[in-house]
Amino acid sequence: MSEASTPVDITRVDAEGAQHVADAVAREEPLEIRIEGRPVAITMRTPGHDLELAAGFLFTEGVIDGPDDLTAMAHVDDPATPEGNTVDTVLAAGVPAARRGAADRAMFASSSCGVCGKATIDRLRQKVPPLSPPLTVDDAVLMGLPRVLREAQDVFESTGGLHAAGLFTAEGGLEVSREDIGRHNAVDKVIGWRLRHDAVPIDDRILLVSGRAGFEIIQKALMAGISTVAAVGAPSSLAVELARDSGMRLIGFLRDGRFNQYSA
Amino acid sequence: MSEASTPVDITRVDAEGAQHVADAVAREEPLEIRIEGRPVAITMRTPGHDLELAAGFLFTEGVIDGPDDLTAMAHVDDPATPEGNTVDTVLAAGVPAARRGAADRAMFASSSCGVCGKATIDRLRQKVPPLSPPLTVDDAVLMGLPRVLREAQDVFESTGGLHAAGLFTAEGGLEVSREDIGRHNAVDKVIGWRLRHDAVPIDDRILLVSGRAGFEIIQKALMAGISTVAAVGAPSSLAVELARDSGMRLIGFLRDGRFNQYSA
Repeated sequence: MSEASTPVDITRVDAEGAQHVADAVAREEPLEIRIEGRPVAITMRTPGHDLELAAGFLFTEGVIDGPDDLTAMAHVDDPATPEGNTVDTVLAAGVPAARRGAADRAMFASSSCGVCGKATIDRLRQKVPPLSPPLTVDDAVLMGLPRVLREAQDVFESTGGLHAAGLFTAEGGLEVSREDIGRHNAVDKVIGWRLRHDAVPIDDRILLVSGRAGFEIIQKALMAGISTVAAVGAPSSLAVELARDSGMRLIGFLRDGRFNQYSA
Repeated sequence: MSEASTPVDITRVDAEGAQHVADAVAREEPLEIRIEGRPVAITMRTPGHDLELAAGFLFTEGVIDGPDDLTAMAHVDDPATPEGNTVDTVLAAGVPAARRGAADRAMFASSSCGVCGKATIDRLRQKVPPLSPPLTVDDAVLMGLPRVLREAQDVFESTGGLHAAGLFTAEGGLEVSREDIGRHNAVDKVIGWRLRHDAVPIDDRILLVSGRAGFEIIQKALMAGISTVAAVGAPSSLAVELARDSGMRLIGFLRDGRFNQYSA
């Protein structure tokens, strides 16, 4: 177990039944990158090698041209952000204002989360109404969902390059599915479909995503009132935390006739 | 072939040799979402169901509470953005300023690209020095890289939840690899490692990523001077376009003793 993963107790379900086991999920936490005290980017990342991440980010976003532009960098403590999740940097005096300003554009370029995860979790708790209880769904129905989504996913077959999201009834019927190169876009599309059909909150459906489930997916599901979320891939630590705090049922590794249940 | 994919001519390489074939990649283009003329978000997405995407985005970011908050939405033509890539919305008069303002926070929450793809491609062309020619690499060396990266990827084994990026010599030696829940973070980490070792631009290495290669990965590689990029998964249309325009060698589906070459 490295710092990049977090232990979790889960329920593993397969044809033999369910058992409680100790497992691990990839850690996901926000990193705030600052230039001389000014926040310029927040990215949801796996802790570790944070100084490399900050240096690489500033370089690939065009703020610094090389190592000489970076005078110093270090983790800083700030009561407003979780420990170890803020890196401040000092640029060389010669870095022109135009490149320092590039960091403002960079904020939009690489973040998948705009605010500290903890702060956002708190904000969501206040903002969203309590979730309905998770739907009652047969294990066998759950296990059959990925095949249905995959069959509806025609572009993936030709390109291998698209994520999919689908809304299912508790009986396993597919209501709507959408594909996109961005997982969060596919989720927004199925939620937007329901909104445009005057049918939100979505407290009567299972959301299935074809890949992994991170903070952003769970956040979107909560905002839409979805109380049962399943992913074909792995969830992150922050996804599990957010689901547990919200009373959401979160399922991962839903494939090959089995799944892991992380909450509810 | 749907609007969600784009035809490309590629070179397919396996143990039998190389052949030119017609293939398809998932389309990736920027969508600018506006509220009453004001841009509030740009997301790299696969075209199609754009109104659902915009509606779902505004809902899951807390700008609208339901369909009644959305008076109208439509694609608009703007010479500054590629055709079909801008959606404008009109909110109901009763939507409070605080929620309209949430869109500003939302900009940070869901975009994986902050500016129109075309504009950014142009900006990169001006900004980055011409790439060195791609490295000369034996096909067999290329085919062996994913196994080496996977063996270095210890957290994935325990969580199934992490992306990896690695820098390799032309002879197949692994210089550095990093894992992260965000693909772009893993790439920033290996580039940042080089920067902190005073070794940029990275014109002497192959960048391998464990998953798919979209615009953002290619953009970061270009900024770092990397002229050979390989992905275990699929590239996007914009990744292929950017690689071709830049003289980068882009390889996808590098697995199981074969690969597709998309450029150079």
